[in-house]
Amino acid sequence: METLSENTCFGGVQGVYRHASDACRCDMTFGLFLPEEAKDGPVPVLWYLSGLTCTHENAMTKAGAQAWAAEQGIALVFPDTSPRGDGVADDESYDLGKGAGFYVNATQTPWAPHFQMWDYVAEELPRIITANFDIDEDRQAITGHSMGGHGALTLAMSLPGRFRSVSAFAPIANPTQSDWGRKQLGAYLAEGADWAAHDSSLLMQESGFDGPVLVDQGSKDQFLELLRPEALAQAMVARRQPGTFRMQKDYDHSYFFVASFMEDHVNFHAEALYAD
Amino acid sequence: METLSENTCFGGVQGVYRHASDACRCDMTFGLFLPEEAKDGPVPVLWYLSGLTCTHENAMTKAGAQAWAAEQGIALVFPDTSPRGDGVADDESYDLGKGAGFYVNATQTPWAPHFQMWDYVAEELPRIITANFDIDEDRQAITGHSMGGHGALTLAMSLPGRFRSVSAFAPIANPTQSDWGRKQLGAYLAEGADWAAHDSSLLMQESGFDGPVLVDQGSKDQFLELLRPEALAQAMVARRQPGTFRMQKDYDHSYFFVASFMEDHVNFHAEALYAD
Repeated sequence: METLSENTCFGGVQGVYRHASDACRCDMTFGLFLPEEAKDGPVPVLWYLSGLTCTHENAMTKAGAQAWAAEQGIALVFPDTSPRGDGVADDESYDLGKGAGFYVNATQTPWAPHFQMWDYVAEELPRIITANFDIDEDRQAITGHSMGGHGALTLAMSLPGRFRSVSAFAPIANPTQSDWGRKQLGAYLAEGADWAAHDSSLLMQESGFDGPVLVDQGSKDQFLELLRPEALAQAMVARRQPGTFRMQKDYDHSYFFVASFMEDHVNFHAEALYAD
Repeated sequence: METLSENTCFGGVQGVYRHASDACRCDMTFGLFLPEEAKDGPVPVLWYLSGLTCTHENAMTKAGAQAWAAEQGIALVFPDTSPRGDGVADDESYDLGKGAGFYVNATQTPWAPHFQMWDYVAEELPRIITANFDIDEDRQAITGHSMGGHGALTLAMSLPGRFRSVSAFAPIANPTQSDWGRKQLGAYLAEGADWAAHDSSLLMQESGFDGPVLVDQGSKDQFLELLRPEALAQAMVARRQPGTFRMQKDYDHSYFFVASFMEDHVNFHAEALYAD
């Protein structure tokens, strides 16, 4: 593993690291914020999954999460959103291929050789960060924005016991019923494959999450028709899922929205991470 | 108007008053908490509508609202839930007739002569409290529990400009699709009458509310199938209604649930009542 940069940040260290990925069969880069407390022993960790077009860098520089994570003594991981490199398949559109891994394991040509983002985020990267940094693997939580909110919710519900809490900012909430979803699931996965396993509204209907859930959505989000937040809200309440769904007046889909509510999300996760 | 009792309470006064009601054509009793600040001029007011079987007294003694209202300098009104007295029609069941006015104007026999709870709460009682107490009628908000949550939401959406904010604890959220609703609307209103005007999920779908909305629901509420909170949650988010829906883990339908979140609700309303 190669250290690309390390900056002192809110008393801790914001690092960027590169490693050869077995899952994605290419080099992968991620950001990791370690609070000051990590000098003295393992700290809890909050995963942040990013949205379409993002790399590891967007949230790391624009979401303002380190301030609150430092206050709570929590590490932050910022994975990339897709495999990268010259040998990796891509598409002309912004919402397929590089920057648009959708947190699934592709089985279809030409994506299957590298687009294994589920395994990367669920298996390989956790091994790497717990082996190399002082992270308490029993205290993990997950959040994300847009496509990353989709990733956070689907990972949290599909890996019971892994995450103590899950939150999302304007998640792609019902991809099997949206052009943000049908296109990507159709490209990456076989027709007839289990798309429902990658739809947080359907997972919520089926099984829910064994812990608290927080979802924020801006009322002036320019992508509301693609995100379908009403499907997730309905499913959460129909399931009696302990949690909170907030429709935030006038906010759009940008990182200004994410940053505005990041303190609430970090504090929400801190409560779960420090319980018992 | 007759004063039945006045008790000093959190530096203010908790009063109970009786008056001859034109709307209900019987004597009606209500509770009113005035904070200390009312000595110096008009104060904002939060209406609290109660649920099935309640009188003006239940929330006044069990919801713990005065503590937070005193802190915020807000008055509280606790209306009764139906007309009362020997000449008033009733039913053997707990959920029809006395204690179960459902916040509608009855048009059917034998209910029409007295069961005019919409007019009482929307028109007559506001006139009485603003005429007799130092209440700022431009700063009103409304909340309620169960049938009262239904009342609060339907009044707030049907009287644009009247209330700055609305909240509800475990509201009867979709009465046209529930036995808590079809029975009462069927008894009080004509078949073919506009039941939709008394269904907060349908009103939310149609028009929403021009202000913030907060709904709390307990995940172990014994009446979830009758309340149908998922219909309201879906409608709120589909409408992009600025607001928050919280599914509170393990809470039931009791006043222990209401009291547990009363501070949040009073503070939520205070923010709207003191804006600008």
